[in-house]
Amino acid sequence: MNKEINIAILGFGVVGGGVAELVEKNSSLLGKRLGRKINIKYILDLRSFPDSPFADRITASFDDIINDKDIDIVAEAMGGSHPAYEFSKECLSRGISVITSNKEVVANFGPELLRVARENGARYLFEASVGGGIPCLRPFGVSFAVNRITSVDGILNGTTNYILSEMTQNGSEFSKVLRRAQELGYAEKDPTDDIEAIDASRKIVILCALAFGVMPKASDVQRTGITKITPDILTAASELGCKVKLVAHASVDGEKLCLKVEPAFVSKKCLLSSVDGVFNAVSVTSDALDEVLLCGKGAGRYPTASAMVADILEAGLRKDEQLNVHEIRENDMPCASLDEFSGRWVVLFEGNEEESFAELFGDSKIKLIPSIGLVAVLTEEKLRGEVSRLVREQGAVCHGIFEYK
Amino acid sequence: MNKEINIAILGFGVVGGGVAELVEKNSSLLGKRLGRKINIKYILDLRSFPDSPFADRITASFDDIINDKDIDIVAEAMGGSHPAYEFSKECLSRGISVITSNKEVVANFGPELLRVARENGARYLFEASVGGGIPCLRPFGVSFAVNRITSVDGILNGTTNYILSEMTQNGSEFSKVLRRAQELGYAEKDPTDDIEAIDASRKIVILCALAFGVMPKASDVQRTGITKITPDILTAASELGCKVKLVAHASVDGEKLCLKVEPAFVSKKCLLSSVDGVFNAVSVTSDALDEVLLCGKGAGRYPTASAMVADILEAGLRKDEQLNVHEIRENDMPCASLDEFSGRWVVLFEGNEEESFAELFGDSKIKLIPSIGLVAVLTEEKLRGEVSRLVREQGAVCHGIFEYK
Repeated sequence: MNKEINIAILGFGVVGGGVAELVEKNSSLLGKRLGRKINIKYILDLRSFPDSPFADRITASFDDIINDKDIDIVAEAMGGSHPAYEFSKECLSRGISVITSNKEVVANFGPELLRVARENGARYLFEASVGGGIPCLRPFGVSFAVNRITSVDGILNGTTNYILSEMTQNGSEFSKVLRRAQELGYAEKDPTDDIEAIDASRKIVILCALAFGVMPKASDVQRTGITKITPDILTAASELGCKVKLVAHASVDGEKLCLKVEPAFVSKKCLLSSVDGVFNAVSVTSDALDEVLLCGKGAGRYPTASAMVADILEAGLRKDEQLNVHEIRENDMPCASLDEFSGRWVVLFEGNEEESFAELFGDSKIKLIPSIGLVAVLTEEKLRGEVSRLVREQGAVCHGIFEYK
Repeated sequence: MNKEINIAILGFGVVGGGVAELVEKNSSLLGKRLGRKINIKYILDLRSFPDSPFADRITASFDDIINDKDIDIVAEAMGGSHPAYEFSKECLSRGISVITSNKEVVANFGPELLRVARENGARYLFEASVGGGIPCLRPFGVSFAVNRITSVDGILNGTTNYILSEMTQNGSEFSKVLRRAQELGYAEKDPTDDIEAIDASRKIVILCALAFGVMPKASDVQRTGITKITPDILTAASELGCKVKLVAHASVDGEKLCLKVEPAFVSKKCLLSSVDGVFNAVSVTSDALDEVLLCGKGAGRYPTASAMVADILEAGLRKDEQLNVHEIRENDMPCASLDEFSGRWVVLFEGNEEESFAELFGDSKIKLIPSIGLVAVLTEEKLRGEVSRLVREQGAVCHGIFEYK
């Protein structure tokens, strides 16, 4: 117990570099907590960094790391599924704990890697893979663990939240705000993963695993991006006292998993609606705790690195503890289709004949929003599928069906 | 390791009863996490509860508990300093872990009880003492531990937050809303601890201990209650894009601890402003993470009990780990007086002569709010002390100085 904790960092990019920097900067703080000094022994990167204070620790060979018996923990910050998955598995199979920010690997191979970790007395930790620096996964280990969780909702993608917030504030078009986000570095050159909700799907799958013990595939998530959101839709939301947010949701309804990511009308009375810009939030609803909301910066060098260094601390302190993960299995539950979700919905129609819709939706609230030439209908406790069908049968033009939270 | 974990609950009131109920209800869940079954062996209460399913475990004698060698954990939910302090100390000195929701005992005797716990290989845990069910203390152990924390702000009292929210929404007078809160059971018959910010002072002292490693006395906190808040002041806040919240704050400025609880003007752009009604929130600002906000129900039988049962899990799993607490000492730092706090302030004057104040406050924003006959002045980066002095020298009538967040 008295030797140093030796770590290797895989990938010396934005996040990996941040981990190295934080470990050095707060080394006395970490040493006190752990009772041992953390030593960065290797950093794996194909590039060389002659001017970096870590230059002497850079290696291009993973073998250097895996063959060094002194390595206790590997921090994987490479991104992409391969070879990050293979490297992680190799480490875990030798009893080396792996911590990661790589939601792609966790979402694709989580249950397998957790099993390998367990079998070899190592930890596989991924706090940084969801919500950046927000401590939103660790509470499932103890604080939420004494509860029966009913649902998890989240704003899990900073890029889309920034875009929607800007569109709402300035009435700008989607494409224009996306370009600005790209200029500012908030969106990637190829923004598909963010704006089509692929990134958020991976993250809700991870949250689902912690909340319900099964990890579905990201492709099981009912997913709608934000590309079709227009300023008109945001105006309609505002008229109804809402903001449009890309909300990720996981719950269990009977024998089915309900998983989706889609733009939703979130009431301004709801805390999630106040989470603007690049902030992320995770809201957990459970029997004893009711709603708990955890909010913070969902991305960026230092928040993400902080979550990874916290996992290093966790792995260093509690190597034998399988608490967070001991029940996560590959998904064996069917997943609900979009039409099977219960909830309240807002339907945006083209037209202005309030009466003709009033009949259709019984005692639902119907609102004419003249400034934008849309009729907004709030259907309480009706299923989306039923609404869709009614709309189809009546030949009305529908601009969208949004969950109303 | 294979035997049961035997616990005793001190106090069978709202919280203690909730703990018993939750432990029973989620016993298989807890058993899985712990690898051992939790057994409630005693419940200490002077009353008898013949109809309770726990009737056979009620005892009026603390000796029954302390003399039983099988007791591993005691859950203290008695309230008040005495004999809760003496009982806790006695347990800890015999190596029995103590978990508590009793902020009074933690704030008054925390460092001593933590020391006794450490010396005897026990845990003293108090997640439930701040923020009810919000997991707002545990993250200081790992997630925040790799950061240098700069400040902690919180809405830590549900009663006052409910009263201020109601006053804001309905324009009602303080005394009227307080009466309604008492009828609804949100406020005590004697509401002094809540409305004079004594309760929030105890809680910020506990957060200060976790954030900065020193636990000051609750009496060190600069404290202003909400009794002087009028609908006019709330209107002024609204005109400035703010809500009035009772905000507790802890930070370190040079060699001084800055500790206060007072009504503040919180910008609606700030997440804390959205925390309404009986919700509580803790906002932690640190170097790597920036701001993280944790929000949820700050009181009530089940949220509080959930936090206590989570601590039982923690104590059962990690008996030897002193992580959360190993650096908390009695306060040896001086505390800042109100005039020494830096920040931005809103000053509410009686009068409507904008010009005469413009001179006084240089390039600060000055706003005339005719509907309420007040002049509101926003002084950026000026010290409150300076503002007070200027006001006194000019003989203006001041309705209040509020921090502007």
